[in-house]
Amino acid sequence: MAEFSRIAVLGVGVLGSQIAYHTAFKGYDVVAYDVDDDAVGRARARLETLAERYEQEVAGAGIGARGAVGRIELTSDVARAVSEADLVIEAAPEQLSVKRRLFSAVGEMAPPRTVFATNTSAIPPSALMDSTGRPDRFLALHFSNLVWRHNIAEVMGTARTAPEVYASVVAFAASIGMVPIELKKEKPGYVLNSLLMPLLKAAGELLTDDIADPATVDDVWRIGTGADYGPFEMLDIVGLTTAHHIASHGDAKQREFARLIKERYLDKGRTGVETGEGFHTYPR
Amino acid sequence: MAEFSRIAVLGVGVLGSQIAYHTAFKGYDVVAYDVDDDAVGRARARLETLAERYEQEVAGAGIGARGAVGRIELTSDVARAVSEADLVIEAAPEQLSVKRRLFSAVGEMAPPRTVFATNTSAIPPSALMDSTGRPDRFLALHFSNLVWRHNIAEVMGTARTAPEVYASVVAFAASIGMVPIELKKEKPGYVLNSLLMPLLKAAGELLTDDIADPATVDDVWRIGTGADYGPFEMLDIVGLTTAHHIASHGDAKQREFARLIKERYLDKGRTGVETGEGFHTYPR
Repeated sequence: MAEFSRIAVLGVGVLGSQIAYHTAFKGYDVVAYDVDDDAVGRARARLETLAERYEQEVAGAGIGARGAVGRIELTSDVARAVSEADLVIEAAPEQLSVKRRLFSAVGEMAPPRTVFATNTSAIPPSALMDSTGRPDRFLALHFSNLVWRHNIAEVMGTARTAPEVYASVVAFAASIGMVPIELKKEKPGYVLNSLLMPLLKAAGELLTDDIADPATVDDVWRIGTGADYGPFEMLDIVGLTTAHHIASHGDAKQREFARLIKERYLDKGRTGVETGEGFHTYPR
Repeated sequence: MAEFSRIAVLGVGVLGSQIAYHTAFKGYDVVAYDVDDDAVGRARARLETLAERYEQEVAGAGIGARGAVGRIELTSDVARAVSEADLVIEAAPEQLSVKRRLFSAVGEMAPPRTVFATNTSAIPPSALMDSTGRPDRFLALHFSNLVWRHNIAEVMGTARTAPEVYASVVAFAASIGMVPIELKKEKPGYVLNSLLMPLLKAAGELLTDDIADPATVDDVWRIGTGADYGPFEMLDIVGLTTAHHIASHGDAKQREFARLIKERYLDKGRTGVETGEGFHTYPR
C-alpha cells in the first residue's frame, strides 16, 4: 500500500479549500493550485477563514489551526503543484472538458507513481480515466461540504482502478480523520447523493402539491429523524440556482418544482443561504 | 376553539401506550381502552416501562413520571372509555375494517361534542370519516415512535373536517409538547413517511445493486446528515417483516429488495431489532 506524504489539491473553491486545509491540518504537506493570481488570492482568504472556523468549531484545534495554513503552498503553476505530489486531488469546476484537460496536463507533469483522485460530484470517474494516462492509478475521492463535521470520504474506483491504489486512498482518507465510504462499483451520485436526491425530490413534491410549507416539512425531518437540516434547508445551502438546474432536468413533477423555485424565489433574488433569503430567511 | 381536558386513547399497543402515557404525563386525564383483560394487562406493563424510560430519558421528568401512570384509567369497556371524552385518539390495529367498526361503535357512544382522531399510518382518514357519524369532527393525528423524543404530531384533515376542529387538535398537540405539523390536505404517508419511503427505497437499491453494504450506507447517512439512524437501522427498527411486506408491493427493484430481505435475513430468523439481528446486530 502506497504511503502519501505530499498532497496536491487542484482547484481551491468551496470544497477544494476545505480539502486542502483539512489535509494540512492533519499534518500533510499540501500544494494547492488555482488558475491565476486572482484565484490564488481568493483561495488564501478561504484558507484563513477556515483556520478561524477550525479554531472555533473543532475541539482541540487550538494553535494548530493557524499552523495548518503555513503548511499549504499556494500556486498558479500546475506543474509546480504536482511535480512532487504523491496524491493529486482534483476539485476543479464540474465540467467534463475542464476536468479532462486538467488531468491530461497533469498526467504529463506528475511522476509516474502519483495517484490521481477526482472529487467530482456529477461526472463518473470512468468518463475521466483515459484522460489521466494512468487509469489504474485513478479513482474518485468525494468529500462532503463542511469536511470537519460531515467527515465522510466516498471512495469509488472504476473497473480499471488497481486494488492497491484503491486501498491506499482508503487509508489516506482514514489518516485525515474521514470515515472512508467504500463503494464496490461506480454509481452516479455515490451513496450520499443517491440517498439525498430522492428525499429532496419528495420534499419538492410536497411543496408543489401544496401539502405542507417548507418550514413544516423541515420541522418534520429534523425532529422526526434527528437530522441537522430539513430538505428545504439543504436546498438553501446548496443554492436555489443549482436546485433549479437539477429539478429542471427531472420528471414532470420535478419540472413543476423547478418553475416554482424560479417564480417564487429566483425571480425575487432569493437564491438561498448566500443571499440570506431562500425557502427560509438567514441567519435563522 | 374547543378545549380538551379528558382524553380517550383506543388501543394501547406500542404507539397507543406512548400517546396515552405522554398525554397523562402532560397533565391530562386519560382513559385508555384495549379489547380485553389480557390486552389491558399488557397495556399496564407498557405504561410502567414508559414511566421508567421517562425517568431516565426525559429531563426533569422526576416523580411526575410515576404520577402519570396514576392519571390513566385502563379499561376494556369502550363505552366507559369514551362516554365523557373530549377527544378520542384511535390507535387500533392498521386494518380498515377494525378501525371502521370501532369508529362506528364509539360514534354512537361518545357525546356529540367529542372530537375523533385517528393515528392511522396507512389508511387515509377519508376512508374512515363516514364511519364516525361526525366527519366534521374527525381528522388524523399522527404521532411518531418515541413521542417524547421525536415530538411531531402530524395533523391531517379530510375535505369535511371543520376548521375549528382542526385548530383545536393543533392546539391540543402543542399543549402536550408536540410540534404540530399542519398538512393542508390529505396525503398518503403524511409528511414524514412521504420523505422516508423514497429514502428507504434508494437505500434498498444500493444494496440490491451491490454498490455498498448496509453499514457503509448507514455511516454515510448518519455522518453526512446528522440523522440518528441510517436507513438500514431504520428498517431494523420498523422490523424486516414489515419492510419485506412493503417492498414486495413496490416496483421491480423493490421486489428484488424484498427477495433479498427474505433470503438473507427473514429465512434466517433475523427480523430486526426485536430479535437482535437484522441488517445489523443489536445492541450495537
